[in-house]
Amino acid sequence: MKLVESVPNFSEGRRKEVIEGIVNEARKIRRVWILDYSSDPDHNRSVVTLVGEPEPLLEALFKMTKKAAELIDLRKHTGEHPRMGATDVIPLVPIMNVTKDECISLSRILGERIGNELNIPVYLYEQSATSPTRENLSNIRKGEFEGFSEKIKMKEWKPDFGPDKVHPSAGVVAVGCREFLIAFNVNLGTDNIEVAKKIAKAVRHISGGFRYVKALGFKLEERKIVQVSMNLTNFKKTPIHRVFEVIKLEAERYGVPIVGSEIVGLIPLNALSSVADFYLRLEKFDSSTVLENKILQKIVEEE
Amino acid sequence: MKLVESVPNFSEGRRKEVIEGIVNEARKIRRVWILDYSSDPDHNRSVVTLVGEPEPLLEALFKMTKKAAELIDLRKHTGEHPRMGATDVIPLVPIMNVTKDECISLSRILGERIGNELNIPVYLYEQSATSPTRENLSNIRKGEFEGFSEKIKMKEWKPDFGPDKVHPSAGVVAVGCREFLIAFNVNLGTDNIEVAKKIAKAVRHISGGFRYVKALGFKLEERKIVQVSMNLTNFKKTPIHRVFEVIKLEAERYGVPIVGSEIVGLIPLNALSSVADFYLRLEKFDSSTVLENKILQKIVEEE
Repeated sequence: MKLVESVPNFSEGRRKEVIEGIVNEARKIRRVWILDYSSDPDHNRSVVTLVGEPEPLLEALFKMTKKAAELIDLRKHTGEHPRMGATDVIPLVPIMNVTKDECISLSRILGERIGNELNIPVYLYEQSATSPTRENLSNIRKGEFEGFSEKIKMKEWKPDFGPDKVHPSAGVVAVGCREFLIAFNVNLGTDNIEVAKKIAKAVRHISGGFRYVKALGFKLEERKIVQVSMNLTNFKKTPIHRVFEVIKLEAERYGVPIVGSEIVGLIPLNALSSVADFYLRLEKFDSSTVLENKILQKIVEEE
Repeated sequence: MKLVESVPNFSEGRRKEVIEGIVNEARKIRRVWILDYSSDPDHNRSVVTLVGEPEPLLEALFKMTKKAAELIDLRKHTGEHPRMGATDVIPLVPIMNVTKDECISLSRILGERIGNELNIPVYLYEQSATSPTRENLSNIRKGEFEGFSEKIKMKEWKPDFGPDKVHPSAGVVAVGCREFLIAFNVNLGTDNIEVAKKIAKAVRHISGGFRYVKALGFKLEERKIVQVSMNLTNFKKTPIHRVFEVIKLEAERYGVPIVGSEIVGLIPLNALSSVADFYLRLEKFDSSTVLENKILQKIVEEE
């Protein structure tokens, strides 16, 4: 079984009937599962977490994008969060038995269909980007819906798919393959924020640390301790255990113990398996020998 | 979602149509999944691995036991493996969101139904046992089918459910709750078998080690190294990481490194999670935040 995750963002966080209308498009499709969805009225934006097999997932995402284009008019949209489309961004994340290349190819299939059938300009971003300036979503989104009528005329901002003209009400959309993002925090047994800041600096990419780590130091006021708060943007290339062990080493240098850690939100089974793999020095191990995973595969095979 | 595993053993390992007939009973039932089944012609015995939600799983096990009683006649059965029933033993293993007490109660419900409706005497064993002499399956099975007509007359071997008389063709059956068994081997960087034997002795229950560890030392001739080969009979109370770390410590004392380890067969997600939990010092973590597990729960909820 192949599994892909998607976390599409829609520019509507207030009108329940609109949000339900969009989510319902995914509910109709077999082999696509809605894990979660939530709306922020201030941002006027909703985020849906879906998982599915590649083909039905693309179908669900296309139908949701179509519905969003019918129900949302960006000319009347206000909200705190920057946005450029009724469906603003569609990330695709390989979860199980799917390579990065397959995922990129899925993003192109979806992008082309949205461009052709819905007349919405599509920008490929992150791992699917067709130029380095398009890797970063915020680069693409700069100028937002209001500025895009002009931006789209620039040669370097010609869309990857669809018309060379902004959709009047639905704007433009970014589609791309990215890795699963793990939110991982490590708590240190000190109230000295400087230690957390120094360690965050040591592990994060921007200041010389690991390629796929974003990190900040925080105070946990109530517990009178400090935290290194991280996003691991590619757990396959920068695995959890390596980051954890380096934090432990650096903390020791200040005489500070690690008092705990936490994973916020979901973690893919493969990330968990690789922790066990490292510490137990497993010789050949993969997630397919995990009982619950085997059941999942049986169920999907059956259908 | 609640999940229970069962690994029933049937006294037929040669006639394919009989084995298929028994397995088919489980195939008919929704929310029960057959993960694996295999037959040994020399033992003349088949082992089926099933997982399911409690109620449908009990239904499947009852139907399989009924079918086995129809198709197998122990008076004509020969094979190397000791046996006392057409369905010889039905272990129930709590996998997800099921307590030991619930599992024991499930074994009693199943045992009572088999006793009443199929007229087969039932012995509750392991965690379900009604007396210490019945905890160990081999104690119950001593004398086998042929000896049971006499054994059953003894006061201490009065069945827990069903008639006080052996079923003429289907014998008797043991039903009970036990923990998931993990086969875990640790490989040591030496060809000195004595080191493996000493470490096996250090960790196994019988010689003073951990309560839920069975262990032996072996030579891996081809690789010219030795192995501590283990069964962990209760990973909740004697977790993998603790056994691994003690082996590492003991090996160090002989100047021997751990070169690798392996998990043979399936491992429950909770066992894997507890490894990550220990090494990453997770503050609040449970398997429900694992993506694949969440999908599994969604699918089952949907049905």
